Amino acid sequence: MHFTSEQLLDDGVLERRFTLGDIPGILWTSGSEPAPLILMGNPGGLDRMYPRLAARARGSVVEGYAAATIELPGSGDRPLDADAEQARADLRQAVQAGEPVSDEIVTRLVLPLVDKAVPESQAALDALLTLPEINDGPVGISGGVLAIGLRLAAVEPRIAAALLFAGSYVPRSMFDEARQVTVPLLVLLQWDDEGNDRQMALDLFDAFGSKEKTLHANMGGHTGVPAFEGPYANQFFARHLK
Amino acid sequence: MHFTSEQLLDDGVLERRFTLGDIPGILWTSGSEPAPLILMGNPGGLDRMYPRLAARARGSVVEGYAAATIELPGSGDRPLDADAEQARADLRQAVQAGEPVSDEIVTRLVLPLVDKAVPESQAALDALLTLPEINDGPVGISGGVLAIGLRLAAVEPRIAAALLFAGSYVPRSMFDEARQVTVPLLVLLQWDDEGNDRQMALDLFDAFGSKEKTLHANMGGHTGVPAFEGPYANQFFARHLK
Repeated sequence: MHFTSEQLLDDGVLERRFTLGDIPGILWTSGSEPAPLILMGNPGGLDRMYPRLAARARGSVVEGYAAATIELPGSGDRPLDADAEQARADLRQAVQAGEPVSDEIVTRLVLPLVDKAVPESQAALDALLTLPEINDGPVGISGGVLAIGLRLAAVEPRIAAALLFAGSYVPRSMFDEARQVTVPLLVLLQWDDEGNDRQMALDLFDAFGSKEKTLHANMGGHTGVPAFEGPYANQFFARHLK
Repeated sequence: MHFTSEQLLDDGVLERRFTLGDIPGILWTSGSEPAPLILMGNPGGLDRMYPRLAARARGSVVEGYAAATIELPGSGDRPLDADAEQARADLRQAVQAGEPVSDEIVTRLVLPLVDKAVPESQAALDALLTLPEINDGPVGISGGVLAIGLRLAAVEPRIAAALLFAGSYVPRSMFDEARQVTVPLLVLLQWDDEGNDRQMALDLFDAFGSKEKTLHANMGGHTGVPAFEGPYANQFFARHLK
């Protein structure tokens, strides 16, 4: 892990870009005490997503967390994957035609991404948890590609709480993995997200094995998660990481 | 409206019993400044429900609200209604037999209750809002019988925010009233509430006309709403009543 740039933001948050092998990432920290880490997912394209990622990260850091994110396989400056691009085009075509998105397309798009991104996230945890600014205790994950968060929550024992954004498709074959998830969950669903499958999201929420699981459904479309969910998320992590 | 008893509780909350005509009620207040009112619904039986009602009320009052509730028609010490008792027995029998609860039974049980309870709640608002301890501004409603809260939110213009507990049946004929509701809504649903119809609750959430509507689904059974929903409720009312 190599830091490539750093910038002190006006709220006192230190933002550092890094690379982990050839994967770019961003770390936001503050203060002198080691803070619990929230690993933030993203939908791909760190530069494109930067304003929203930084806003979410800074909202967590000022509440006493460290926040970090890494680029997805095949997104941003990382090499494209031809099969994934084809699957993405097929999915977009189905959505635009108003057709149901088949599990075959979802599986072709999402499963290889999950298979690559989860070990990369685990490697990021290995590196980040050695930093003195970060508390080597329980970790939270927040947002990003739903299926990646799902598998991370199922397989990675350092994760003690997961905030999942039900705004992307999950292959039906992964519903069995959802039953293996036992950590406390906060699932955000945009009720009127037209590019998403609401019933799939509700079925997935039902499938999670966690004893403490909460669904927050709001209006506002895919990108319109209300601002009041930010403090709710911090309260959720405070209950489980502090 | 006549106060019949008063008691200063150990958190400084003043609890007063009152009657409004022949309807018993309870008012919880605190402090010197007039506070916004939260009218709390209840499932019937003020004495039976007192511990949970008082805990919810005190949690709101210490955050700067006044809270009040009145007895339901046919519950507690109020005269029984033979038709309602028969409908309640029919509903209980269907649930115990694991049969679907027919809309006919729900309508027979709930609609007459709504028709009586809503004007009584409005009369309670008339009386409560003249008290100097209560701010004559926007009012919140919280919990209780879902169909009563639904109609109050649809017809009573003093209500500016509604927290509804999706833990009881609503006649299908009232879904049109749900479309007339436009105030901000927070709907609580116990996902694993076996005496309730989850799909009906989700359909009803979908039907509400409000631009700001939020669903919080949790585990824990009918009476197991997690304690962390208390602060969330106060934040919801703070956004809309203060």
